[in-house]
Amino acid sequence: MGIYLDNSATTRAFDEVAAIVSKKMTEEYGNPSSMHECGFEAEKAVKAAAETIASTLKVNAKEILFTSGGTESDNLALIGCAFANKRKGMHLITTSVEHPAILNTMHYLEEQGFSVTYLPVDASGRISLEDLEKAITPETILVSIMHTNNEVGSRMPIAEAGALIKKIDKDIIFHVDAVQGYGKDIIRPKKMNIDLLSVSGHKIHGPKGVGFLYINEKIKIKPIIFGGGQQEGLRSGTENVPGIAGMALAAKMLYDKYDEDIDRLYSLKKRFIDGILFSGLEDLRLNGLVDNKTDMESIKMTAPHIVSLSIIGVRSEVMLHTLEDEGIYVSAGSACSSHKPQPSATLTAMGIDKAGLESTIRFSFSVFTTEADIDRTLEAIKSRVTVLRKYIRH
Amino acid sequence: MGIYLDNSATTRAFDEVAAIVSKKMTEEYGNPSSMHECGFEAEKAVKAAAETIASTLKVNAKEILFTSGGTESDNLALIGCAFANKRKGMHLITTSVEHPAILNTMHYLEEQGFSVTYLPVDASGRISLEDLEKAITPETILVSIMHTNNEVGSRMPIAEAGALIKKIDKDIIFHVDAVQGYGKDIIRPKKMNIDLLSVSGHKIHGPKGVGFLYINEKIKIKPIIFGGGQQEGLRSGTENVPGIAGMALAAKMLYDKYDEDIDRLYSLKKRFIDGILFSGLEDLRLNGLVDNKTDMESIKMTAPHIVSLSIIGVRSEVMLHTLEDEGIYVSAGSACSSHKPQPSATLTAMGIDKAGLESTIRFSFSVFTTEADIDRTLEAIKSRVTVLRKYIRH
Repeated sequence: MGIYLDNSATTRAFDEVAAIVSKKMTEEYGNPSSMHECGFEAEKAVKAAAETIASTLKVNAKEILFTSGGTESDNLALIGCAFANKRKGMHLITTSVEHPAILNTMHYLEEQGFSVTYLPVDASGRISLEDLEKAITPETILVSIMHTNNEVGSRMPIAEAGALIKKIDKDIIFHVDAVQGYGKDIIRPKKMNIDLLSVSGHKIHGPKGVGFLYINEKIKIKPIIFGGGQQEGLRSGTENVPGIAGMALAAKMLYDKYDEDIDRLYSLKKRFIDGILFSGLEDLRLNGLVDNKTDMESIKMTAPHIVSLSIIGVRSEVMLHTLEDEGIYVSAGSACSSHKPQPSATLTAMGIDKAGLESTIRFSFSVFTTEADIDRTLEAIKSRVTVLRKYIRH
Repeated sequence: MGIYLDNSATTRAFDEVAAIVSKKMTEEYGNPSSMHECGFEAEKAVKAAAETIASTLKVNAKEILFTSGGTESDNLALIGCAFANKRKGMHLITTSVEHPAILNTMHYLEEQGFSVTYLPVDASGRISLEDLEKAITPETILVSIMHTNNEVGSRMPIAEAGALIKKIDKDIIFHVDAVQGYGKDIIRPKKMNIDLLSVSGHKIHGPKGVGFLYINEKIKIKPIIFGGGQQEGLRSGTENVPGIAGMALAAKMLYDKYDEDIDRLYSLKKRFIDGILFSGLEDLRLNGLVDNKTDMESIKMTAPHIVSLSIIGVRSEVMLHTLEDEGIYVSAGSACSSHKPQPSATLTAMGIDKAGLESTIRFSFSVFTTEADIDRTLEAIKSRVTVLRKYIRH
């Protein structure tokens, strides 16, 4: 597949994941609801997966609910909690740079009579705790803040926000969309006051079509899908046993090698950023760094796997297809909104100007990315941008 | 896995299905929303799958929406249409023997202010068209009738119901839950006046965690899951490309060999029924046949893969585990409700008495089932029931 640097859109599944998915489809294919051995075996596989995932977060296995992916996890968290807790109030808080799975679900809830505050972000893509504190009212029932931004890799002050929210009102539910953060950071919901955490399988080298929602056992939530009463009635439908087992294995593989892989990913990110800075090319802007700092300590305050780069004067689509010519696959903005021509809400909220909005490319790495991939990509950018700009200027 | 006769709970995936799922996870793993070659390839795979499935129903590919399974398809059909059409009226009609994915979604809609009529069934498990006609009012916006009952294999008069509904009011939406019928019958939504049809992947030797909903392009429906706007905004979330490709392949494999397989399945069902009738055992009752007739023509009015048998005096769980001892896997009622101790709503609605309710076993076959499996199961029933009844009587 050439050099695949679109890992925030989706990742290659681990071979071991594909193997277990295949085994659960053709050998251990029981329905967890069946009362015989094949059913019990399937039920055990689901429980084992919940335990594996729970151990990566230091939560209880029964607090892990399996869903069809990050989008469903986000929908269940927001809709399920909004309706279950609306007696207390109908005010929700989120940020202006969330994934569409949050923003569009919030819009749906607004149609249903809820009011939503969208917190602004600074040029680094982060909310301020002051803004959060000011937004909370006695009517607030839920705050949803993403862990890692999918377009620029900025990270929100999750632990600080969690502490602040609970200090003001311990009954406010704190949801974190960790689709881009899980597997790339140590997340401790209990310590960080996170009540709900959304994760997607296919962003962590697991299968597509599966995800999970961590749900603090103390909070009230209602189902959004009804049926056979699986998963304690909170998510009906035959459990996707192959997908669930595959996702748990992917999570385990990532966290078993976490220190080594994350260090290597940050080295790749630093190598890429330094390569851009010393490329000799003018008018390049890196987005989503903390105060534009490029020392390792500052880079480590952002995601290890995402670099957002604006190549002023070269339109995103042109650069994307130019790199594709060289066998390098990247994204213009995020995959989830790339079919739509409007400018990125995240970049706009960060105050990026028109020239930046039109020319932004996202490079996203994974554990499969090598130094050679980075160097080859840097070379391609250097040679191609020089030529493209000459062409554009004449 | 021994003799697996619980194919209405879930099926073994075809090896070819597992192979394509694996390939789409590790080789062609792009996100359909990505704007580069890997994305386009994934998008093409999704479109090809829609075309394959559409061709089995003789509908348009753009009328196929992919979901996370039969339960989500049912939820989207009912909730999505109820809310999109409530200006016309708030009355819904269904039957008393639907799967919980329909019944519990209807209960949710009742909480939301809709009124629901549950049609009774006769001893064969079928509704009457007279009852349906009487139930329709000017407020009726949707009728949902299952194609094949999951517990007893009875089949509803779908084409007749469709014609009747549209004759009375062509704006009433007709939904059919075909989770147990698709792959085992020729279904023609356009001819049968079906507007919505729910199907699950894992019941047809495809993957778990994927399904589809056929949606007549003329009807109004709203999404129930919000986000990145995939699938024309009707079902957000990264498409489960491996699952979708796998399900389409399974559908194609089943319909390519349809005539041969279905004939063989009906022969197996007849062989099983005849074996039961001539077993010499007393107090056995077959459920869900048409007027209790066991000639081939009558059997062909029921599903080819389901036999429901009450072995009076032997409790379902006892029989299930007795057969399990012999390596034969069956179900007590349906898998989806077998974790709950209450008596089956379907069997109750069919007028089956307490002795029958307590002693019903479901045998469900698939294309992997052989004559030897049937004969071995008949032998096991004969020898074990004789012993069990002696034991129970003493």
